[in-house]
Amino acid sequence: MHVALLGGTGDIGEGLALRLAYDTDHTVVIGSREAEKAEASADEYEQTLADHGVEASIDGKENTDAAALADVAVLAVPAYYLTDTLNAVADDLGDAVVVSPAVGMKGSESGMSYNPPGVGSVTQLAAEAAPDDTPVAGAFHNLAAGKLAALDVDLDWDVPVVASDDQARKTVISLVEDIDGLRALSAGGLENAAEIEALTPLLINLARNNEGLHDLGVTFH
Amino acid sequence: MHVALLGGTGDIGEGLALRLAYDTDHTVVIGSREAEKAEASADEYEQTLADHGVEASIDGKENTDAAALADVAVLAVPAYYLTDTLNAVADDLGDAVVVSPAVGMKGSESGMSYNPPGVGSVTQLAAEAAPDDTPVAGAFHNLAAGKLAALDVDLDWDVPVVASDDQARKTVISLVEDIDGLRALSAGGLENAAEIEALTPLLINLARNNEGLHDLGVTFH
Repeated sequence: MHVALLGGTGDIGEGLALRLAYDTDHTVVIGSREAEKAEASADEYEQTLADHGVEASIDGKENTDAAALADVAVLAVPAYYLTDTLNAVADDLGDAVVVSPAVGMKGSESGMSYNPPGVGSVTQLAAEAAPDDTPVAGAFHNLAAGKLAALDVDLDWDVPVVASDDQARKTVISLVEDIDGLRALSAGGLENAAEIEALTPLLINLARNNEGLHDLGVTFH
Repeated sequence: MHVALLGGTGDIGEGLALRLAYDTDHTVVIGSREAEKAEASADEYEQTLADHGVEASIDGKENTDAAALADVAVLAVPAYYLTDTLNAVADDLGDAVVVSPAVGMKGSESGMSYNPPGVGSVTQLAAEAAPDDTPVAGAFHNLAAGKLAALDVDLDWDVPVVASDDQARKTVISLVEDIDGLRALSAGGLENAAEIEALTPLLINLARNNEGLHDLGVTFH
C-alpha cells in the first residue's frame, strides 16, 4: 500500500514514517507544501532507519504529488491547517482513504483541554472538507510522537479508529496493526471521534501531574 | 476513614462498597434517599462479601445521616440527581471531601457521546453545587461497574483524579490506591475533569464495536 503522510515533516509524521518503514512493507511518501522540505525530511528519516539497520526508500514530494500516489493519505498537520491541506489535494486524492490524526487543544495554567471545532471533532472537520466520495477515518490521535519516533522503544498502545464506512475502517485498522505494538480498535463512526480526540489532552495532563510519566499512550482492557 | 456512598444502592456504589470492604479497613456507609433501601443494599453487600469469605459490617442510612459520618462522601448517583443529592446533604457534610464519579452521556444509533453540563463537566457541577468550603474531587469516572463488583476479578486500571485542592487530592488518591488493582493518577484541577469524563463513552463505544471486549477500563503508559 502507498501511504502518504501529508505534512509528514512534523513530529507525528516523522513517527509514523519511521514505524511504517521499520515495521511494514508499505511504501511511505512524505508530503509537504514544499517538495524540498519533504525531500529533506525523507532523507533524514532514511538516515535514522539506516542507523537502526533498515535500508528504506522514502520519497519526499509536494502534498499534491504525494496524495496522487496514495492508497491512504494521513493528514499529519496541525488541526488549523487541516482544511487548507485537504483543499489543496482534493483533486489528487482519487480513491485514497483520508486519515485524520489531529486534535484541537488549548492550554491554560491548569493544563490542556479539548477544543473541538464547531462540527464536533477535527476528524469530522476532515470529513466535511474532503471531496464528497472520499472515505475518511480518524486514527493515531493518542500517540505520543516522541515515543513513536524512538525506534528502540517497544510500543504497547491501543489506537481507536473511527471511519465513514466499513471498507475504510478495515483498511485503516489493518494499517495500524501492521505497526508492531499497536492494536487497532474500532470506535464506530465518525460521530464518535470527539471522545477519542479528547483523550489526548488528558494524556498530557496526566504526564504533567505525575512524576515519571511522559509520552503517554493508552490501553483499554 | 469513613466513606459514605451516597446513592450507594446503584451499580457504581455497589462496586465501590464491595471493593472498599474487601480490600481496605475503611468504614463504608451506604446512603440513599430512603434508609430502608440503603439498609437492604448494605445487607446484600455484606452477604456478597460473606460469600467471598469476608466478614464486613456495612451500614445503610439516609443520605443525610451517611454524609454526617463521612470523611469522604462519594456522589454515586446519576449526573441528573447530583445537584439534588448535594443540596440535600449540604448541612451534614462537615469537613468531608466530596467525590464525583458521575458522567453525563447521551446515546444515539452510532454510540454514546459525552454530554457535559454547561459548567464544563459533572465534576465541576458538583463543585458549584457543594457548600463553599467543601473540598471537591473527581474520581472513579471510568470504572466498569460490572467488573468492579465482581470480587473474583482482579482489577488492573488507572483512575485519573482531579481535585479542588492538594489535601483533597491526596485523600482521594490514597483512597483509590487502597483498592487492589487501581492506580490513582493526578490529572490536576477540576478544570481538567471533562476529558476524564469523556473517556467513559469512548470505553462504551469500544466495547460495543469490538468482539470480546466488555467492561473496559484503561491504563496509561
